[in-house]
Amino acid sequence: MNKRAVILLSGGLDSITALAFAKAEGYACYSISFDYGQRHKTELNAAQRLAEKYGVVEHKVIQIDLRTIGGSALTDDIDVPEVAQEGIPVTYVPARNTVFLAIALGWAEVLQAEAIYIGVNAVDYSGYPDCRPEFVTAFEKLANLAIKSATEGKPIYIRAPLMSLSKADIITHGTALGIDYSETISCYQADAQGRACGQCDSCRLRRQGFAEAGLADPTRYQ
Amino acid sequence: MNKRAVILLSGGLDSITALAFAKAEGYACYSISFDYGQRHKTELNAAQRLAEKYGVVEHKVIQIDLRTIGGSALTDDIDVPEVAQEGIPVTYVPARNTVFLAIALGWAEVLQAEAIYIGVNAVDYSGYPDCRPEFVTAFEKLANLAIKSATEGKPIYIRAPLMSLSKADIITHGTALGIDYSETISCYQADAQGRACGQCDSCRLRRQGFAEAGLADPTRYQ
Repeated sequence: MNKRAVILLSGGLDSITALAFAKAEGYACYSISFDYGQRHKTELNAAQRLAEKYGVVEHKVIQIDLRTIGGSALTDDIDVPEVAQEGIPVTYVPARNTVFLAIALGWAEVLQAEAIYIGVNAVDYSGYPDCRPEFVTAFEKLANLAIKSATEGKPIYIRAPLMSLSKADIITHGTALGIDYSETISCYQADAQGRACGQCDSCRLRRQGFAEAGLADPTRYQ
Repeated sequence: MNKRAVILLSGGLDSITALAFAKAEGYACYSISFDYGQRHKTELNAAQRLAEKYGVVEHKVIQIDLRTIGGSALTDDIDVPEVAQEGIPVTYVPARNTVFLAIALGWAEVLQAEAIYIGVNAVDYSGYPDCRPEFVTAFEKLANLAIKSATEGKPIYIRAPLMSLSKADIITHGTALGIDYSETISCYQADAQGRACGQCDSCRLRRQGFAEAGLADPTRYQ
């Protein structure tokens, strides 16, 4: 049996690059997306298409309604800000990566997967505590105490291959690994056709990344 | 504002005792249950009734379909065994406590709660890796790296007050704190009326607990 990895796939630029890294490591890839009440559902459609295009073995969408716990502009009725904010942005979803990694961990155990890939990185950090290297390290430690297979001598690894890369580096690496970014969606408020607003933090970082990488920006804007 | 705690409430004997401990510590209690595709839905009804009876401020039920990741007799079509098993039981749900704690953590942050209570203990352990003290400690460490409020100097504590107690001790403490266990459900295969099978691991531990505590067993059996 090929060694397996579970990849958190959001439909964005970073997570598909994380998947490309996993494939390059020789993993049979299993992708997982979360329908958590986010306003940008077009992401989920993009994730599904990307999973098919890049040959994952199985793609799963998990329903979990984080709106019921509230507290974020991505799931509540708080406006998404169009200017850069100081500190942790209001688009922060409480404990999101902890929840997503936890569910991915359950699937990883069922699959007897060796690794979970998550596309967090230093640029995406922008104040999110659950995108830092110490968070990933702590989750890996927890994971190896949490699941049956790990207590039986089969460790699980949490990989964050983009952690130390700039957005431009991510785009450069992903392009070299064969990723076509035109179908990825990074925008916090993409429209129903998947076109980006061009104004939010996420759009700004992405546009700047293509510019710094010296590559044409294939993003479809509104 | 009263200090707040989120309590993982399953409708069973242990979790309501954990809630009693939180109340005794002076916390305003917020309880959370998970509808995760388990076969024993009567637990969810019991949790709702117990939350009302013991005066929690708010009770939430989170929908999350763990059946889609499979791997457990509690959510799959594997038979629940009626004789004690060696090692980790087939009723183990992959990463269940990790997932539940992660979601509770998100709500705790929104509530600005100081603690999360979980009713795991040494007896319930019976091979479940995510019921051990080292798991709880690792989750607490993760939690304080994961959420915004913790990075801003407001730590969160994961409390497992039953960890070192036997089932008999739990029952003795809970009874002293005013808990009436007749409405709690521990059985893995309770019927629609909430009556216990009397045969599964969970029923066996519970019955033995009342016997060792020298208290009448109020459980309704099938």
